[in-house]
Amino acid sequence: MKILMCVPNISEGKDLNLVEQVIDEIRSVKGALVIDHSSDSDHNRSVLTYLGEPEAVLNASKAMAAKAIELIDMSKHHGSHPRMGAVDVVPFIPVRGVKTEEAVKISKQLGKYLGGLGVPVFYYEDAATRTERILLTRIRKGEYEGLEEKLKDPQWTPDEGPAQFNSRSGATVTGARFPLIALNVNLRTNDISIAKNIAKAVRHINGGFRYVRAIALAIEDQGMVQVSMNLTNYLKTPIPRVLETIRSEARRYGVNVAGSELIGPVPLGALEEPLKHYLQVHEFCMSQIIENSILDTLD
Amino acid sequence: MKILMCVPNISEGKDLNLVEQVIDEIRSVKGALVIDHSSDSDHNRSVLTYLGEPEAVLNASKAMAAKAIELIDMSKHHGSHPRMGAVDVVPFIPVRGVKTEEAVKISKQLGKYLGGLGVPVFYYEDAATRTERILLTRIRKGEYEGLEEKLKDPQWTPDEGPAQFNSRSGATVTGARFPLIALNVNLRTNDISIAKNIAKAVRHINGGFRYVRAIALAIEDQGMVQVSMNLTNYLKTPIPRVLETIRSEARRYGVNVAGSELIGPVPLGALEEPLKHYLQVHEFCMSQIIENSILDTLD
Repeated sequence: MKILMCVPNISEGKDLNLVEQVIDEIRSVKGALVIDHSSDSDHNRSVLTYLGEPEAVLNASKAMAAKAIELIDMSKHHGSHPRMGAVDVVPFIPVRGVKTEEAVKISKQLGKYLGGLGVPVFYYEDAATRTERILLTRIRKGEYEGLEEKLKDPQWTPDEGPAQFNSRSGATVTGARFPLIALNVNLRTNDISIAKNIAKAVRHINGGFRYVRAIALAIEDQGMVQVSMNLTNYLKTPIPRVLETIRSEARRYGVNVAGSELIGPVPLGALEEPLKHYLQVHEFCMSQIIENSILDTLD
Repeated sequence: MKILMCVPNISEGKDLNLVEQVIDEIRSVKGALVIDHSSDSDHNRSVLTYLGEPEAVLNASKAMAAKAIELIDMSKHHGSHPRMGAVDVVPFIPVRGVKTEEAVKISKQLGKYLGGLGVPVFYYEDAATRTERILLTRIRKGEYEGLEEKLKDPQWTPDEGPAQFNSRSGATVTGARFPLIALNVNLRTNDISIAKNIAKAVRHINGGFRYVRAIALAIEDQGMVQVSMNLTNYLKTPIPRVLETIRSEARRYGVNVAGSELIGPVPLGALEEPLKHYLQVHEFCMSQIIENSILDTLD
């Protein structure tokens, strides 16, 4: 079976009853499976995670977004997290057997639908229509409060929907992006400068791997430091290559890796390289995994 | 979803049309999925691999066995592989969410069914009723040709079915066993004595790991040698512990591992320890794997 994942952020994190009503819309779509959701009252924002075949995920996303737009009034919204709309951002993430182009297509179907409901929509990441719309932070700059002005700028004509400010819904950003692997590596030292050096060694911006973002953190209660990373393309920058570089750089200082953390949902595909690398099973085929062969037969 | 796997061996490997008829019986059962089958004409034997929820696998096994018994006449069977019946051996293998006891129960339901069809049935491995019936080789000793005499021995009264010789069906062995991991490790040397020493170091019989069987082989066309293993309980003797011992022993001789091979279907559960060990993700939960969370929701 194909798996497309969707991780929308909606601008309500206090009224959990409202959030449940939105999630129920997803659950009501056959073939859409909610695997996680979390709400933050300070941020006043909820993150929902669901998946399924692309068509089911599109339908669930339409139902989810329509309900959120119906219930959330952005003109009354306060929260510490940057946002510009009731349905703030809707990334579609190809997990299994789905090409980027297909995920882009789905995001644009959602965009057209929301545009038809009177919501200004911007496409970002792999669905971006202009280079200055690739990054979410750039589209969202000025936030909800600056949106009315921003929409008057021809450079920020929405990709779908009216260029007119909708005070209730705000604007929505949607698009497609590769699954992101959140990997933290803890080091047996309390010397933060070592974690900083290693973060610089592996991250793209300083000359490291193309698809690594990294920062250094202190884990004070454990007397350790951490290299906290996002791997934005596990196929082109696989986990073991990054981890082995960290181990090697840490050894320069006589420091060992104490442990690692993979945070949140992980596509099975991201674990192919770790298995092949460390077991040296060069010819291993993921369809040998029994559970995988079952998923292959499901539709 | 629960997954029980069944890997019966039937005594026909030449008449592929006949084998197809037997496989079709499995395919006709809803929820039973044939993932592999292979026939060997010298052995005159076929190995079928299918899986599904326990109930579906039991029903498929009954249908498979009934058809094989209908079509195969053991009194005319010749082949180089040891065998004692048309449906020679039917192991049930708990792959996911199934306890050994449940697999044993399923094997005994098949045993009763075949006994009712007039086939003498012996239970082996985890379903064995006596210690001398644990090993297949011991039950099968004397093969089909010695079966008539063997059945007259009170020590070999069948667990199910008549103690009388059935010349057409022969006898069937069924039971439950843990999934077996076939792991081969290739060494960058053509010195077979090194592979022999390492095989001795890791295998149970010589003081190695409890759940490892190992032999040394030459891979002559590659100028390498191989430690060829069966891991009979990947939970208690996990893959990385065995592999790291091989790497360490090989280093004594200045030899490196050139590559490994995992042969055939592998339960996802067998890959948990490799991932945790090599990535040091001590807290990683297999339900974080997206594909796994989908299987968890299926019934």
